[in-house]
Amino acid sequence: MRNPVLIELTRGALVESLHAGAVAVVRADGGIVAAVGDVAAPTFPRSAIKPLQAIPLVETGAADRFGFGPPEIALASASHSGTQAHTALARSMLGRADLSPDALACGVHEPLDPATAREMIRSGAAPTPLHHNCSGKHAGMLATAVHKGEPTDGYWRPDHPVQVRIARVLEELAGCRLSPDVCGTDGCSVPNWAMPLSGLAQAFARVAMREGMSAARRVACRRVAEACWAHPDLVAGPGRLDTLVMARLPGTVLMKAGAEGVYCGALPERGLGFALKIDDGGKRAAEAVVVQLIGRFHPEMASLGPPVQLANWRGVEVGQMRPSTAFEAMLERLQRHPRAGGDPRNSPECKT
Amino acid sequence: MRNPVLIELTRGALVESLHAGAVAVVRADGGIVAAVGDVAAPTFPRSAIKPLQAIPLVETGAADRFGFGPPEIALASASHSGTQAHTALARSMLGRADLSPDALACGVHEPLDPATAREMIRSGAAPTPLHHNCSGKHAGMLATAVHKGEPTDGYWRPDHPVQVRIARVLEELAGCRLSPDVCGTDGCSVPNWAMPLSGLAQAFARVAMREGMSAARRVACRRVAEACWAHPDLVAGPGRLDTLVMARLPGTVLMKAGAEGVYCGALPERGLGFALKIDDGGKRAAEAVVVQLIGRFHPEMASLGPPVQLANWRGVEVGQMRPSTAFEAMLERLQRHPRAGGDPRNSPECKT
Repeated sequence: MRNPVLIELTRGALVESLHAGAVAVVRADGGIVAAVGDVAAPTFPRSAIKPLQAIPLVETGAADRFGFGPPEIALASASHSGTQAHTALARSMLGRADLSPDALACGVHEPLDPATAREMIRSGAAPTPLHHNCSGKHAGMLATAVHKGEPTDGYWRPDHPVQVRIARVLEELAGCRLSPDVCGTDGCSVPNWAMPLSGLAQAFARVAMREGMSAARRVACRRVAEACWAHPDLVAGPGRLDTLVMARLPGTVLMKAGAEGVYCGALPERGLGFALKIDDGGKRAAEAVVVQLIGRFHPEMASLGPPVQLANWRGVEVGQMRPSTAFEAMLERLQRHPRAGGDPRNSPECKT
Repeated sequence: MRNPVLIELTRGALVESLHAGAVAVVRADGGIVAAVGDVAAPTFPRSAIKPLQAIPLVETGAADRFGFGPPEIALASASHSGTQAHTALARSMLGRADLSPDALACGVHEPLDPATAREMIRSGAAPTPLHHNCSGKHAGMLATAVHKGEPTDGYWRPDHPVQVRIARVLEELAGCRLSPDVCGTDGCSVPNWAMPLSGLAQAFARVAMREGMSAARRVACRRVAEACWAHPDLVAGPGRLDTLVMARLPGTVLMKAGAEGVYCGALPERGLGFALKIDDGGKRAAEAVVVQLIGRFHPEMASLGPPVQLANWRGVEVGQMRPSTAFEAMLERLQRHPRAGGDPRNSPECKT
């Protein structure tokens, strides 16, 4: 699992710190277009697969049963910031499935949105499970269980039908088998299966291209992706990278961050999915890598990522955060590659 | 600069993330007792050398001139948490040198102490340069300039006598030459020179053992180390690792964290200094490594470091943070090594 260096941080004339990792860019048919590092090793995708975990919510009919439209589907695909808009929508999703926030098994943390966190400190309000960045995903899982007549207790266990259904979707989209020995427990207590980055990238390419799947799955993939593009503010939150990029490039970039330095996403106009993992779990490097990747096709996105020029507390420039030679070479291979697949926005289900 | 893996984080049955790095454990004479990774590469020590940067404050007579005792010397060696006790003492140091907080060039950030930060949010107070974790170090630098009749303007520039004096101390203690091409700008705007981990470890061993130096330097080294041991609460802050360990093992462990995954310190009873750097700058790994290192001789310290059993937001155990095989092997070599040097607490200047 020692991967090449992808990102270097300089101070003065020297490299001070570095981040290794692996990146896969893959077509919907599984063909690897460009890669660096070990993209076959089992890798925990963490929250980067939330858009895939939301597919059964639509596919089972649960979303339609409870009147969940694009906002609710976006929140089910989200690592949200816990703003008032996020928590109110999560509460509403639970209410429409006749559940209370007590049903949430995600745990509690302070809102990721600094302004909301500060306001709660000022007002003396304590965070609740609704503020957990995964509460929308959990509300979607619970609603699916209610719709299917399954128990809501233990919906987070690997053997609960809600999780078994998600595992089947992951296996079908990524073309790999998920066995108990690659199953870990995620930060919000639901199972998270380690998968090859190549498989994760293929899964996102297939979501974007909607190739080789049932009609019902095609509709579900389209509704999930379009929900993220229609409501990027619900997928993350104010100032966060996923929100900023998808607000500017709806239909062009699908992206989702995961803990421990993971990103998954798709570039539908190019027929490509991508997945990356920073070995050390560093968020700054994961964001720098994904912005470089997207920036090869949309250079104007580079300014949304972490700063390239590093400044200290007084604003003095102290160094740079830059791609390594190995990562630059991979990006150049990617740029030289001819476009794969067509534009899914021309496909029939997108014209409805 | 690719170093061996030192720390692995597991999830379920798999390794999810890992941190590479280098560690040097060195005697005061420069002999390497145990090492892993490249300990000769130039490495920015960042705040881990604050106790060395405080030596001229004592050695020049500035501390005595302004009545700085152990609390002030500890704060000059600190990355403090910005509590009321820290900011009041930094303000008092400046006042005794007839300066105001306006003289500080460190910049501004919120207090590192969460309780103080929350209280300031509640009361609507804005952070000032006094809250910057380096304000005590800067107050010490400014006081030294005043004492020596040097301009206080630009005290943070690499060519200011205050910084030149510090560079000489670093060169003499670490046995290396500091040239402009290894000079970077630190987070608080003062120069930070990249040095081999072996040299940094030797410097800390010499501070602890006070060997091969002038009488004035010996006194300064003793006063700095004893200040950190007498006031570990001023060197960091509530709940922080340096404070917790030095409060329990004064005279036995000297330690100081630096940004980007650095630690320096000494084990005087064993005649050893140490220095470590995590390649990716990860704090969790730097703390895990230093606790493993100290824990070989003081197993009761292990519980003060980051948790070995990793739990999620609901308290469910999800994995472990553990030393790698390479780091374990280095720790075993260290443990087999006979004690180097004597106990400095038996030396004459400690009995005064």
